[in-house]
Amino acid sequence: MNTDPRVQELLEFVAIPSVSAQAAHAVDMGRCADWLVEKLRSLGLDARREETAGNAVVVGKTPRDPAKKTVLIYGHYDVQPPEPLELWTTPPFEPTIREGRIFGRGSSDNKGQILAHILGVGEALAEGTLPVNVIFLIEGEEEIGSKHLAGFLEKHRAELACDAIAISDTGMAVDGYPTLSYGLRGIATMEVRVHGPAQDLHSGIYGGAVANPATAAARLIASLHDTESRVAIEGFYDQVKPLAEWERQAAAESPLTDADIAREAGVEELAGEAGYSGMERIGARPTAEINGLGGGYQGEGSKTVLPAHAFFKISFRLVPDQKPDKILALARRHFEKHRPRGVRLEFIDGHGGEPFMLDPISPEGLAARRALEKVFGKKPALMREGGSIPILTDFQRVLGRPALLLALASPDAKAHAPDENFPIENFLLGIRLNKAVLEELAKV
Amino acid sequence: MNTDPRVQELLEFVAIPSVSAQAAHAVDMGRCADWLVEKLRSLGLDARREETAGNAVVVGKTPRDPAKKTVLIYGHYDVQPPEPLELWTTPPFEPTIREGRIFGRGSSDNKGQILAHILGVGEALAEGTLPVNVIFLIEGEEEIGSKHLAGFLEKHRAELACDAIAISDTGMAVDGYPTLSYGLRGIATMEVRVHGPAQDLHSGIYGGAVANPATAAARLIASLHDTESRVAIEGFYDQVKPLAEWERQAAAESPLTDADIAREAGVEELAGEAGYSGMERIGARPTAEINGLGGGYQGEGSKTVLPAHAFFKISFRLVPDQKPDKILALARRHFEKHRPRGVRLEFIDGHGGEPFMLDPISPEGLAARRALEKVFGKKPALMREGGSIPILTDFQRVLGRPALLLALASPDAKAHAPDENFPIENFLLGIRLNKAVLEELAKV
Repeated sequence: MNTDPRVQELLEFVAIPSVSAQAAHAVDMGRCADWLVEKLRSLGLDARREETAGNAVVVGKTPRDPAKKTVLIYGHYDVQPPEPLELWTTPPFEPTIREGRIFGRGSSDNKGQILAHILGVGEALAEGTLPVNVIFLIEGEEEIGSKHLAGFLEKHRAELACDAIAISDTGMAVDGYPTLSYGLRGIATMEVRVHGPAQDLHSGIYGGAVANPATAAARLIASLHDTESRVAIEGFYDQVKPLAEWERQAAAESPLTDADIAREAGVEELAGEAGYSGMERIGARPTAEINGLGGGYQGEGSKTVLPAHAFFKISFRLVPDQKPDKILALARRHFEKHRPRGVRLEFIDGHGGEPFMLDPISPEGLAARRALEKVFGKKPALMREGGSIPILTDFQRVLGRPALLLALASPDAKAHAPDENFPIENFLLGIRLNKAVLEELAKV
Repeated sequence: MNTDPRVQELLEFVAIPSVSAQAAHAVDMGRCADWLVEKLRSLGLDARREETAGNAVVVGKTPRDPAKKTVLIYGHYDVQPPEPLELWTTPPFEPTIREGRIFGRGSSDNKGQILAHILGVGEALAEGTLPVNVIFLIEGEEEIGSKHLAGFLEKHRAELACDAIAISDTGMAVDGYPTLSYGLRGIATMEVRVHGPAQDLHSGIYGGAVANPATAAARLIASLHDTESRVAIEGFYDQVKPLAEWERQAAAESPLTDADIAREAGVEELAGEAGYSGMERIGARPTAEINGLGGGYQGEGSKTVLPAHAFFKISFRLVPDQKPDKILALARRHFEKHRPRGVRLEFIDGHGGEPFMLDPISPEGLAARRALEKVFGKKPALMREGGSIPILTDFQRVLGRPALLLALASPDAKAHAPDENFPIENFLLGIRLNKAVLEELAKV
């Protein structure tokens, strides 16, 4: 048993089943927000729950010294649903330590990471060494789309004014390796519905003479990429900033190899756009991925139907300076241009989010890199990640300050999956990293 | 109210809910077989139920005159499930006459057509004019794949020996127009499963660097046809007999136009292989149709998943002399050749059936054409149909005699759909056609 009181506190935090997606856990959400408020107050912060139309936002502020810079630290206390429960080695809300890791839903996404920041600030306050003012902003709806966060930022813009934003909700390039995630891809999603005959037809009686929407959908999907796996939509790359030489260099020096990525993904070999490494394809290049497709008969065996409809769902991942709306418009034009004769297309636009990028050679970027090197004893990896955190755009739009993504989660964290875990070492390093980052940002 | 006793008998026959696919109707299946046996006996035939491992087969024989030829008439007394019930104007098993048509499940598929043959034979027997020996073979499993019919034919091969086979289970080219269907397409079905990563991946975290099985499946489907809508599988057309000049002529003179087919199918315009009319594409040219496809997220909105698997189901419709096994082998080779990097393919072969063709200028073909012309007062349309009746291959293999497909169902029969119907006029013409065909076959 680990007797470190900080680890015990994390176990307590993870044990609260704050599942935002499940109405049955509404009481737990409130209990978790209260737990955070208590924790922040016990460390000397001015903390409160702020209600929204959804789950409460927790705000905690250190005593304000106008002579000091202010850093806003963002995190979330809600967690993903734990299902399928039978795949967990130990129950998701009975956090358990095995081989130096805390297993439990939310341990790495995002309770371990945010608690490390809280405890780091708490220690500095106790020691009287806190070099900046800190505002904690911890929401309860990150896993369900942060629906009320943008409005909250707008409403509390003055109170939340700051010089920099720190977020630990990303993953390390490789385990134990310091990582500054300086980019995240944007996203634009759409569904394309392909309509053919008025109803399903007998594929014998009409097959060969009537356009088949399933075949048409497949041809449209196939038209999305050229033989080099580049996206074949006209104009798709027009706004894409090419990778800088130093970025290609950093990617080449990354401890994360293509073989690592293939192993993590569970594939024999990587695929994708010619001329780029796996890391570059994931972080720095835009994509068009099919997330789902369907049409006709889906059951056992065969049914000789010529389906009336088919559909596919796409998500485009975007990089600076692509704009979601523009990309969706180009895609619609592309599909209409490639539409096979005899079918009609319907487009349903989904959500969008702009790509994020922090210049790693900006003063804040350099501060974060110095802090990471100090704590981990080696130069941090610079990484652009493939995922999207749409609220980053809101932070930049409303607060107008650079955001630093300081990764503490292990690549093997299993966020959103059974056996989610957070290494105790990363938790303790996170506490030190918090202090180092705040010290470095104070000097900017 | 129609007082013709023959029509009343058909209403009685259609009222029996002999749905072979639904276990709840097992008793009705037996009741329907008994009804037929009684009917045949009342007309002077030697009739019996012959049990199989599934539903009974009804056999009825006219008194045998060894000096006469023998014609076997095939039909089925089972019907498709009536669902969705709410789309029927009147209940499916309460047959109702409207605008000269009998509406009810099974009215045209196949009860109206087979009863017309039975009544035609009955009238000729009563008049003492029956020119041939007749054997009725009426099964109860046509709508569920005729599982036990081939075995039945083998077992009763001697008893069922005949000079020709007559079947009315197809549709007229256009309403009221005499039609000899002299060809039916064969079929070969398969499912292709496309496997990628070990589990579904986050499309942000891995998208762009891992082969997407949904995209791969779409590319494989797209590879099936060239830009002229010809099937692009190497060797696919090698065994295809080209259309004879007289066939092209007959198709060109057909009363069924491309516009008719488009209207029936509920599409604005036909599509398909360049260089052929709609009728030719459907009846005389082989196809590769996607009957179903699926993979990834199928629900509302979007889920940013890179799916681990995708699948598609194909049915190939075949024409002489294509062989189902050979075509599936060519398809497997084609897909492996076009397989995108990073995915694995799994093939699941489905059922197959050979194409059927009766030479319309054979003695039996000419006899059928003379009979049709005599009853309808105009030259019959010669048509190759797009569907498949796999048992025809069994008839030809076991009994070794030509089969005549004499269409009585209206193009608007709505077989397998709500509001299935059979025009009373076609029913009465069917009785006359039966007599004319038997007379003409007697002369062959």
